[in-house]
Amino acid sequence: MMQLYIANKNYSSWSMRPWLVLKAFNIPFEEVMISFPKERNTGTFKQEILAVNPNGKVPALVNSDLLVWDSLAICEYLAEQYAEKNLWPLDSKLRARARCISTEMHSGFPNIRNLCGMNLRANLVEKGAELWQEFKDLQADVARIEQIFSERPYRDGFLCGEFSIADAFYAPVVTRLKTYALPVSEITQIYMQNVLNHFAVKEWIEDALAEDTWVNYLEPYQIQK
Amino acid sequence: MMQLYIANKNYSSWSMRPWLVLKAFNIPFEEVMISFPKERNTGTFKQEILAVNPNGKVPALVNSDLLVWDSLAICEYLAEQYAEKNLWPLDSKLRARARCISTEMHSGFPNIRNLCGMNLRANLVEKGAELWQEFKDLQADVARIEQIFSERPYRDGFLCGEFSIADAFYAPVVTRLKTYALPVSEITQIYMQNVLNHFAVKEWIEDALAEDTWVNYLEPYQIQK
Repeated sequence: MMQLYIANKNYSSWSMRPWLVLKAFNIPFEEVMISFPKERNTGTFKQEILAVNPNGKVPALVNSDLLVWDSLAICEYLAEQYAEKNLWPLDSKLRARARCISTEMHSGFPNIRNLCGMNLRANLVEKGAELWQEFKDLQADVARIEQIFSERPYRDGFLCGEFSIADAFYAPVVTRLKTYALPVSEITQIYMQNVLNHFAVKEWIEDALAEDTWVNYLEPYQIQK
Repeated sequence: MMQLYIANKNYSSWSMRPWLVLKAFNIPFEEVMISFPKERNTGTFKQEILAVNPNGKVPALVNSDLLVWDSLAICEYLAEQYAEKNLWPLDSKLRARARCISTEMHSGFPNIRNLCGMNLRANLVEKGAELWQEFKDLQADVARIEQIFSERPYRDGFLCGEFSIADAFYAPVVTRLKTYALPVSEITQIYMQNVLNHFAVKEWIEDALAEDTWVNYLEPYQIQK
């Protein structure tokens, strides 16, 4: 069985993406969690992941003697291996669009990513309001995300029709919009609810809430109680 | 015929990638150049590209009524449209690897990208030596790149066998290693020569050398003569 190496579910947005795809499409896999250290560059995280993946990062997928790393490359690999499950949309134009928005997320949106780190256990509503006032670039990232969300083919559906890799790529952003309560339109809120109600997303979040690991360098806005 | 929107060949490393793929695999396309402005946030660049691509960036591919943006999504689209040309390696394990290293480039290597911007006309050997001494993170990026180059299946070949999308993704980095004369191993130098001798890379560089546009904000290390 394939192994997916991930880090803490509360924090690791890149781990979340391929994990959601595996769950959503009912692909059997074994989850291997390597916990981030409490303080940066301490503990055994780097050593443990380097033993699996020479670039030293999660997520990584191991299928027998094949290592596949990077969230997007893992999803592309799964899409090929399970071609009958349509991890990307079946329609070629929707599929092209799904890849465009997924790659845009893969390399873009640095402001929301850096300022509003994923933190599923936290309530950062007040901090979100401050950040929103202070950073025009954060507003620009959210505006572009809302544009993408608004262009989905069906108002009550996912980004490119049925749930696909593209939705898995935007799911961590949906949690950030919620955690930091960033001001978004009704049409965005409908999409957020669709994502948050998806069984795979719910399962990831439940697991995250059950974690008790505190990672100091991923908690810029809170002090450990 | 498809149109590929790109920016100046001297500077635009993201434009270079899909352009090389189109040329290397002999796919007919029309090139549309939108020049970067001399000073940031001036001129009509943003307005011209926004008229084509709502995220305001090059490269963008237009095929009749379909817009495909992002260098990697464009390459995936072309790989599907021209499946018989094997833009990704035919072997499924090599294809997985080609995607891993391409996605790693797509979202990674921020130090070489930010410190050593692509500049095909320039000779920045002295600046490269300074940067190399000053920035350990630049050395770490190059070490990882050299690791990837060293793992190619044939010493005299490309990253995953024949020239593929993966090589197009690393071609701008090869030019940076040369422009800034960063110290690299012999096995890296052999790969660099393979890339620099590829007809599509040669054609792009020749076009770049014929350009006379000076973009101030992409010239941190030189003063216009």
